[in-house]
Amino acid sequence: MVPHLVTALTGPINELEQRILDSMPAIERWFRLEWMEHTPPFYSSVDIRNAGFKLAPVDTSLFPRGWNNLTDDMLPLAVQAAQAAIEKICPEARNLLVIPENHSKNTFYLANVARLVRIFHMAGLNVRVGSIDPAIKSPKKIELPHGESVCLEPVVRSRRRLGLKHFDPCTILLNNDLSAGTPGIVEDLHEQYLLPPLHAGWSVRRKSNHLHSYEEVSKRFGKLLGIDPWLINPMHARAGGVDLAEGKGLDVLTSHVDALLTKIRRKYKEYGINEKPFVVVKSDNGADPMGVMTVRDVKDLEAFNHRARTRGAAANDEVRASGDLIVQEGVLTNERVHDGVAEPVVYMMDRYVVGGFYRVHAERSPDENLNIPGASFVPLAFSESAHLPQPGAKPGASAPNRFYMYGVIGRLAMVAASYEMEATDPDAETYE
Amino acid sequence: MVPHLVTALTGPINELEQRILDSMPAIERWFRLEWMEHTPPFYSSVDIRNAGFKLAPVDTSLFPRGWNNLTDDMLPLAVQAAQAAIEKICPEARNLLVIPENHSKNTFYLANVARLVRIFHMAGLNVRVGSIDPAIKSPKKIELPHGESVCLEPVVRSRRRLGLKHFDPCTILLNNDLSAGTPGIVEDLHEQYLLPPLHAGWSVRRKSNHLHSYEEVSKRFGKLLGIDPWLINPMHARAGGVDLAEGKGLDVLTSHVDALLTKIRRKYKEYGINEKPFVVVKSDNGADPMGVMTVRDVKDLEAFNHRARTRGAAANDEVRASGDLIVQEGVLTNERVHDGVAEPVVYMMDRYVVGGFYRVHAERSPDENLNIPGASFVPLAFSESAHLPQPGAKPGASAPNRFYMYGVIGRLAMVAASYEMEATDPDAETYE
Repeated sequence: MVPHLVTALTGPINELEQRILDSMPAIERWFRLEWMEHTPPFYSSVDIRNAGFKLAPVDTSLFPRGWNNLTDDMLPLAVQAAQAAIEKICPEARNLLVIPENHSKNTFYLANVARLVRIFHMAGLNVRVGSIDPAIKSPKKIELPHGESVCLEPVVRSRRRLGLKHFDPCTILLNNDLSAGTPGIVEDLHEQYLLPPLHAGWSVRRKSNHLHSYEEVSKRFGKLLGIDPWLINPMHARAGGVDLAEGKGLDVLTSHVDALLTKIRRKYKEYGINEKPFVVVKSDNGADPMGVMTVRDVKDLEAFNHRARTRGAAANDEVRASGDLIVQEGVLTNERVHDGVAEPVVYMMDRYVVGGFYRVHAERSPDENLNIPGASFVPLAFSESAHLPQPGAKPGASAPNRFYMYGVIGRLAMVAASYEMEATDPDAETYE
Repeated sequence: MVPHLVTALTGPINELEQRILDSMPAIERWFRLEWMEHTPPFYSSVDIRNAGFKLAPVDTSLFPRGWNNLTDDMLPLAVQAAQAAIEKICPEARNLLVIPENHSKNTFYLANVARLVRIFHMAGLNVRVGSIDPAIKSPKKIELPHGESVCLEPVVRSRRRLGLKHFDPCTILLNNDLSAGTPGIVEDLHEQYLLPPLHAGWSVRRKSNHLHSYEEVSKRFGKLLGIDPWLINPMHARAGGVDLAEGKGLDVLTSHVDALLTKIRRKYKEYGINEKPFVVVKSDNGADPMGVMTVRDVKDLEAFNHRARTRGAAANDEVRASGDLIVQEGVLTNERVHDGVAEPVVYMMDRYVVGGFYRVHAERSPDENLNIPGASFVPLAFSESAHLPQPGAKPGASAPNRFYMYGVIGRLAMVAASYEMEATDPDAETYE
């Protein structure tokens, strides 16, 4: 089930969406069976782009922030899902430690932390926030707008456990994506549940693994629905060992971009789509959303290469010019909120969709990354229609849940993340 | 977690409620541990009476109706909980058959059935309604207000399975309390999940078993909170083999009523409560809410006995005058909605509280049964306060969730029902 939220998109339901709405019982059963075999991430958020003719997840966060952008109406759903998650992992839990990012001055981020504390407190846990920022040496209470506050306390590490002074948690929830590397203080904690696992951190995780898992998931899901998996899966390729500043690997990158643009052009022709193909180039590792470059033509790469060589490093909004890169089919977004280009972000706790919002950027075009400074967030409200979609209702009495499709795609990305975490688990036992 | 609903009661928080609010993490952990050992009923509703100084469940339904009295806002919570319930019982489920009561002309009841169909459809199942009413010989579509409809179809029984024509369910959900006896058509179904189990039906179930289990639960819970379990448990006694029309057993009943009134008087004195004690007398079996008699004095019994003997049968609002009776401590309700005496009803799906409403009766007094014709239903809305209870918030910025306490008591009754079902399971394996 996906809550019925009001989407910006209100146009006619196209073939793909209709197929998804009609297949709801089969789809829900498919997810139930997946979760019998695989463990969902503790929590996640997925950015989705809907081009109308196709839609796809473009980013899957395993350390979701922005919980404060969900409406208060969604809190009960998030709390109920949090309860289910805790019950499964550690029913004896009393104390939960949340480890946030080290942005102790960003009140937007801290409002997200406060929201997480609230969710898990309402789920019945004693929740405290432990900072791994060396600058936090004593408890620091930060007042937030609307009368909220967050108290950051310095973590205390003993030989085998991590906690706070007089607070010994059984579960530690990371809201810190560890993109700067895994700090030793969170390593070798074998007595406590550490969620998500350390190999979900961005210093270890690789986008290519996720995309590979998602491709597999989309093929199986496409089979279930009898659709071309391309309709929900952006094609991609990996260009390893590129260093544009050194002029290394440009040929590899160019040939990948060229090949992918050709493939997209072919698909567009097959489906009679009258749009200009584009790809996005981003680093294989790192959560840095600044490093996403839209490439509409191989010539763009030459200009980019030139800038990288002359300036020695990538400028804003361009990929870090060295390392392993991902070339991914670009997916247009044709949703608009207040005249700004928008993309939905779906929030999940355990295997449940608990809410979502639109990321909107007034100064970006439909083929550009929106996750950069200047973006605003518009919560998706619950539908106030008294009549949720139901079979057999009089025409007009029932509005379809347009958010359902986003919830399905969000969960497909979550299944892919689950496969990805299994495949990359350093502690996995191997059976030969 | 219990959703934050607006209660009618807005007075100061008394000691008991404060204790419950303060103990939330311990309480939630206690429930989690209970559900590790015991299976919650698939769905349930609990009538609660809050006298201020004490509160208690007065009726626990394992075939809850009235789902249509919950607000639409609560649908997502119910659906999410339904998903969790299905996943646990039968993740492979595709088809669910709902078996309703045989009231095919009561559109209020049918609106409840329509709501259940909607909840389980949104949880991702193909749902159909199979009537066991012999009068339903072919599919009958009944239009309901607001454009809804319910299609009642005759059930088809094969040797080992129950279904509809061309519809083979893996799970059968009873919304029929079987008070008229267990029909053969639902017996010996060993290949399908039948929920709740047949021994939950009112032709088999005994209130005394439930009260006994609840007493046990309230003692353990009282210990957890450090409170006198009487504050949440109405005392009771069982008077077997009474037949007032025949003048049989009146002495036993009278002595039980007298003893219980004395016990209550003593408790009221202990707590300095300036109210008149009363007891309710009801049949040990049967869901018939008509058969609940308020007794304030043993003399009431003589008058009742006289009426029973002269008229040969109990009149409206009086107990069936024969069989096994329960004498239970009466709990006042001091909630009022629109000047009518009100009692909250808490709805649960699996182990989750998903909503509630007030049952209101303008013509009844605070010590009388409200569950009789003439009652109306006022949904409890979600709190619109942007600030749910949270520790550390500025005074005034956070309102306590007054519905939380009701959710706790509802769940205690649910734990008791779980114990009761285990203790009375005819198929339970006995280990010696």
